[in-house]
Amino acid sequence: MKNYLIHDEWKIIEEGFHPENNRISESIFSLGNGRKGGRGNFEEKYSGSTLPGNYIAGVYYPDKTRVGWWKNGYPEYFAKVLNAANWIGINVSVDGEELDLAKMLIESFRRELNMQEGTLSRTFIASFKNGKKVKVTSIRFLSIVTPEIGAIQYSVEPLNFDGKIKLTPFVDFDVQNEDSNYDEKFWVGEYIENIGNEGYLTAHTKKTKFLACSGMKYNVQLDGKEHAVQIANNSREKYIESTFEIKAKQNQVVRLFKYGVNTSSEYFSKSKLAFEAKEILNNAFETGFDQLLKEHRAAWAVKWENSDIQIESDVAAQQGIRFNIFQLNQTYTGEDERLNVGPKGFTGEKYGGTTYWDTEAYCLPFFLATAPQKVSKNLLIYRYKHLQKAIENAEKLGFKNGAALYPMVTINGEECHNEWEITFEEIHRNGAIAYAIYDYIRFTGDKEYLAPYGFEVLLALSRFWSQRVNWSEHKNKYVLLGVTGPNEYENNVNNNFHTSNMAVWTLKYTLEAIQYLKESHKDLYYKLCAENGFNEEDETNKWDDIIANMYYAWDNERKIFLQQDGFLDKELLPASQINPAERPISQHWSWDRILRSPYIKQADVLQSLYWFEEKYDKEFIERHFDFYEPITVHESSLSSCVHTVLAAKIGRPEKAYEMYLRTARLDLDDYNSDTEDGLHITSMGGTWLAFVIGLGGMRVLKDQLHFDPILPKGWSAYSFKINFRGAHLKIKVSDNKVRISNLSDEKINLSVNDKSITLIGHSIEVI
Amino acid sequence: MKNYLIHDEWKIIEEGFHPENNRISESIFSLGNGRKGGRGNFEEKYSGSTLPGNYIAGVYYPDKTRVGWWKNGYPEYFAKVLNAANWIGINVSVDGEELDLAKMLIESFRRELNMQEGTLSRTFIASFKNGKKVKVTSIRFLSIVTPEIGAIQYSVEPLNFDGKIKLTPFVDFDVQNEDSNYDEKFWVGEYIENIGNEGYLTAHTKKTKFLACSGMKYNVQLDGKEHAVQIANNSREKYIESTFEIKAKQNQVVRLFKYGVNTSSEYFSKSKLAFEAKEILNNAFETGFDQLLKEHRAAWAVKWENSDIQIESDVAAQQGIRFNIFQLNQTYTGEDERLNVGPKGFTGEKYGGTTYWDTEAYCLPFFLATAPQKVSKNLLIYRYKHLQKAIENAEKLGFKNGAALYPMVTINGEECHNEWEITFEEIHRNGAIAYAIYDYIRFTGDKEYLAPYGFEVLLALSRFWSQRVNWSEHKNKYVLLGVTGPNEYENNVNNNFHTSNMAVWTLKYTLEAIQYLKESHKDLYYKLCAENGFNEEDETNKWDDIIANMYYAWDNERKIFLQQDGFLDKELLPASQINPAERPISQHWSWDRILRSPYIKQADVLQSLYWFEEKYDKEFIERHFDFYEPITVHESSLSSCVHTVLAAKIGRPEKAYEMYLRTARLDLDDYNSDTEDGLHITSMGGTWLAFVIGLGGMRVLKDQLHFDPILPKGWSAYSFKINFRGAHLKIKVSDNKVRISNLSDEKINLSVNDKSITLIGHSIEVI
Repeated sequence: MKNYLIHDEWKIIEEGFHPENNRISESIFSLGNGRKGGRGNFEEKYSGSTLPGNYIAGVYYPDKTRVGWWKNGYPEYFAKVLNAANWIGINVSVDGEELDLAKMLIESFRRELNMQEGTLSRTFIASFKNGKKVKVTSIRFLSIVTPEIGAIQYSVEPLNFDGKIKLTPFVDFDVQNEDSNYDEKFWVGEYIENIGNEGYLTAHTKKTKFLACSGMKYNVQLDGKEHAVQIANNSREKYIESTFEIKAKQNQVVRLFKYGVNTSSEYFSKSKLAFEAKEILNNAFETGFDQLLKEHRAAWAVKWENSDIQIESDVAAQQGIRFNIFQLNQTYTGEDERLNVGPKGFTGEKYGGTTYWDTEAYCLPFFLATAPQKVSKNLLIYRYKHLQKAIENAEKLGFKNGAALYPMVTINGEECHNEWEITFEEIHRNGAIAYAIYDYIRFTGDKEYLAPYGFEVLLALSRFWSQRVNWSEHKNKYVLLGVTGPNEYENNVNNNFHTSNMAVWTLKYTLEAIQYLKESHKDLYYKLCAENGFNEEDETNKWDDIIANMYYAWDNERKIFLQQDGFLDKELLPASQINPAERPISQHWSWDRILRSPYIKQADVLQSLYWFEEKYDKEFIERHFDFYEPITVHESSLSSCVHTVLAAKIGRPEKAYEMYLRTARLDLDDYNSDTEDGLHITSMGGTWLAFVIGLGGMRVLKDQLHFDPILPKGWSAYSFKINFRGAHLKIKVSDNKVRISNLSDEKINLSVNDKSITLIGHSIEVI
Repeated sequence: MKNYLIHDEWKIIEEGFHPENNRISESIFSLGNGRKGGRGNFEEKYSGSTLPGNYIAGVYYPDKTRVGWWKNGYPEYFAKVLNAANWIGINVSVDGEELDLAKMLIESFRRELNMQEGTLSRTFIASFKNGKKVKVTSIRFLSIVTPEIGAIQYSVEPLNFDGKIKLTPFVDFDVQNEDSNYDEKFWVGEYIENIGNEGYLTAHTKKTKFLACSGMKYNVQLDGKEHAVQIANNSREKYIESTFEIKAKQNQVVRLFKYGVNTSSEYFSKSKLAFEAKEILNNAFETGFDQLLKEHRAAWAVKWENSDIQIESDVAAQQGIRFNIFQLNQTYTGEDERLNVGPKGFTGEKYGGTTYWDTEAYCLPFFLATAPQKVSKNLLIYRYKHLQKAIENAEKLGFKNGAALYPMVTINGEECHNEWEITFEEIHRNGAIAYAIYDYIRFTGDKEYLAPYGFEVLLALSRFWSQRVNWSEHKNKYVLLGVTGPNEYENNVNNNFHTSNMAVWTLKYTLEAIQYLKESHKDLYYKLCAENGFNEEDETNKWDDIIANMYYAWDNERKIFLQQDGFLDKELLPASQINPAERPISQHWSWDRILRSPYIKQADVLQSLYWFEEKYDKEFIERHFDFYEPITVHESSLSSCVHTVLAAKIGRPEKAYEMYLRTARLDLDDYNSDTEDGLHITSMGGTWLAFVIGLGGMRVLKDQLHFDPILPKGWSAYSFKINFRGAHLKIKVSDNKVRISNLSDEKINLSVNDKSITLIGHSIEVI
């Protein structure tokens, strides 16, 4: 846990330079625009601890899998998010001495991430050995209007001398991934152009043959006036630079405007990639920094208009929730169904891949409620497009007849992960993918999604479950052996409740989908049956049998579902009795000790109760919460959001707020000492749902919105915004009242605290 | 399965060169003398597929662990058997053309391993491109009299020309391990001497700093007469060679005698290592090839006198059992308690480490019955000396108070293995180590071993078990959660019967040991209590409670112990219904499918029944055998031996013989398609026990030997030899009779087919 950042409602501020936290800051001060992004690295050289990171959406490298002991079925390759060209670099020297923050006295350092405007700025005074001082100011952004473009304004001002300022803006494609399995560089240089104040590099990735072009163009001002400079250009493989020197008098400001471009073969034809890069860059150059920034700010204002959450009288909480929303919006814009919400977004390398069940389970609600419908639909289409790969993945494990097992981790539809207990066994992810279809339709009302996308996915998932269960003569029930639930502190267990529950629910939901298709899309349905070799009667008979005869571990004494068979054999001591010095247990205990313990990493049985709360009464949920929460260590960043929702549901506002706090400032306060690897992007979706579904008590029941909010102690009020089927609402919760504003033309019926109300367009209701 | 070797009672013969099987042959034709050994590589250059391998006992390298996903508790390093200097090399060229069996026509190729004499010989005719033919003959051995010494006699005879034969004997220390995790070379060169017909290299290992010196000395004959040659010596880092050329007329034989030496810091002080090597080598050189070989043969005759098994009228079976005995004797001589029986001995790199529970479970009976008592005692002392490391290993996993968990794989007492499901969970190995103490005392009568060695080990093991169990409120019993049994096709199960059984048995046996110490070594006992902080009453009260209240999974319908909780939930289809094209399942099925299946890799419940058969009646064992054997796929080389013993025990001679055949020629016929990696040395101990305990029906009950043999169909007779408490016996089994010869002075009481007999010295009894 760290606490070096200044609390502010709209900004993340580091005052005074904290080199010991630099990698953490680099993560926190990341910028992204859904198409590219990068860590908050410095423009100028930095010889201290740093993780350089610039990432291009969709561009990955299949790094040969590294494993101690191979198991049949492991993927050959692990798809990695790829560190790409460093386009921000500007080397600086002053009268021959190099600017390097690791090697000199730094004063008045201030770094600011302006979340409202989407900009990263920095200012500091550096003292060189010879006593010369300069003031440096920079501001940069990655345009969310023209996503190929980034721009930097970088100023150097001699404070106590007249001298020569040498600047060397560069683009460096000769970069590596820190997590490269074999210390390999993944980019192969192709084309170099470096003429005048403009230069381009193209490179392709090994194996995957993605092509990318990164370029820069710049101009220079002295005291606010254009200043001609004499340029010396240099280049080598995968690197270009441009050097010039300016004589500046004391307090004259030398200002470099550097524009960067990136085009990739994901969006441009390979043959025109460099040409397009040049055109886009020159347009941006002509438009100029101020105008680009103005357009960028305006676009951010629209995003905030749709997704902002306001908290009154708690600046830390306000900063926290906005940081989560800001990063989610930086990571995924939903315009491209080939992309997804990476666990680290554009902020680090760790975990590889971009897609975990996190997206469906924890991120979808945010995009459903704050972005156009297309955005969440694209998250579903992403999985639909990977269906064939998921079927192949299941075939590798011995499944047949079009059964699909979606990968645990993927970037292109193929499995990346290689821990057998997760890769092969953490199959509840298939349930989350089915649930996302249900969740999307529930929220949007777009039942048409089932014809055909949703149906084809559900069919393949149901086929998987029907083969994955087996009949136990002994129990006279279907069982689900050898699985790992969401609680990864258990491996290879039998009859994990959540997994079995998702299996049966998916079968039921697929039957509903079939019913809908037969009623509303009869011809399409029979066409799909033929295409998928789906013998409805035979297959659904088996499904019905499984639905009717599935085994669930149940404790008849406590009247609770058990996480898995044999769970009660454990020593059920509460997590509160663990020596605090041994927390988190994942960092202090051996794996076998964790496995034998009762301790739960994240909601498991409770995940099912959260998803299907309508099936259970309050006492039932309470009983489970009181059994499981005390033995839950919440060592996954995805744990507390589900607990927030359930605690609120069962009328425990203080517990709900306690749980909310664990997720809200996870990265800002470096709660798990791992922010340096990058931000927990998908967990930010969890924070949003903890807020809106948990504290805000939002539900969609029978096509209608419901709110049952609680107000945490210490907050005088909060508000959030929701898009729902054409309506745009602002819900403000303060002591004893809830104020709902309909900001759109659309009339809407909803309920607040069980009271039904109707809001015509542009009206307000207070309850 | 391969069948290219010729059946012979005393020899392994390859006739005609089989380059496609060369790596397999290299394994099979390996030589060793307990102190060093190497694969059956060719002396001359070979550019075809080969795994060069020369290994020095006790010399290892801790290669940084390679793993996909780290788990707390994994070892930092994996100790590897180290490929050391190639001392056999002799490059040959004939009139400027290089001899390389991969590149020329080879006729009349014959390779022979003479197991009776411990020699490897080879003869072939090679045709060069220019039409010239030479006949090459070689014979080599690693002395079991002077274990530092190896010798080669290598002859080249021009068959159809007069010409120049150039020979280049060399020693090459610039070698690598094929299984090096980071493609690193582990040896660092130190000292080079290369003068005249004599040369030496010393090198040390990185990290471990073992020092080794390898040297060569040679002389040359032409037509049987000493022949002076002009030598050109060359050397570079870690490499020396000596080149000379001889003009030979057609049918004149050029013969090189090359003597190799190896000394290591395991046996010589580092400062005198090269000096000692030189002295030993020069002594050998003076003694000469023929005399060295004569002494070597005589020593082998003694080994065979003690350990030979003869089978009449089945040459393949005779060859098979002798190959097993020969390799066991090549691998471990029992003179040094720092050494152990490596899973691949000196025949390959695979698996690293040298010590698995295989030693205690499968190899000890062979050494107990065929070697001096000191040999098996040293195998026990090996573990005693690693006790502190085993305690540290347990501490890493969270155990306290002197509890010991012996490593799954080790060379120096530290754990090498890093699959969590094995490293942390396959803890029944601790049981095997306790059982070995019991087995040793049962066979030798040496109860004194408990004071103190055996007791200290047992105490630490019991302390482990008493902490590893936990009390289940639900079952009202002690349970053993999260274990992996001998059947590694199950992972992380609860209440594996064999593990729980070994836990309880160890506690009981430790209580017996305490009783013995208190009666016979009172002072020592109280001293040991004090030294080990052993509070007898407190600790043994807990043990008694565990013994009385341990839970075992039991099927009350079938009246069998279940392999683990939930075993009956599986689909219990017999292994015979698996598609033969999918066998072995380990190579064809994904890991999750294997785990969910009922299929058993090797004896698990049956391992306990084999070890504790006196506790159960025949019907009880039969019931378990008939439940478990049909679902056992025997994909471990250590499976069939236990099944042989049990099948014989329950009166199923045909099944016993079927099982015996699966182990007897495992490597000779490359049963599992993996002999190329090296031989399954520890499984050879299994073969011996399958023979003597299984077919021969040998038991030791109440200090007395018992035999209850069966004679497989197709064998007219067989005999084996046993050392038992000073007596040396030969047991010959033929149709309807058993002939026991006491070859020693010692009088002995024993029983055959339940009939008690007494044999005075040098007498024979026929029953």
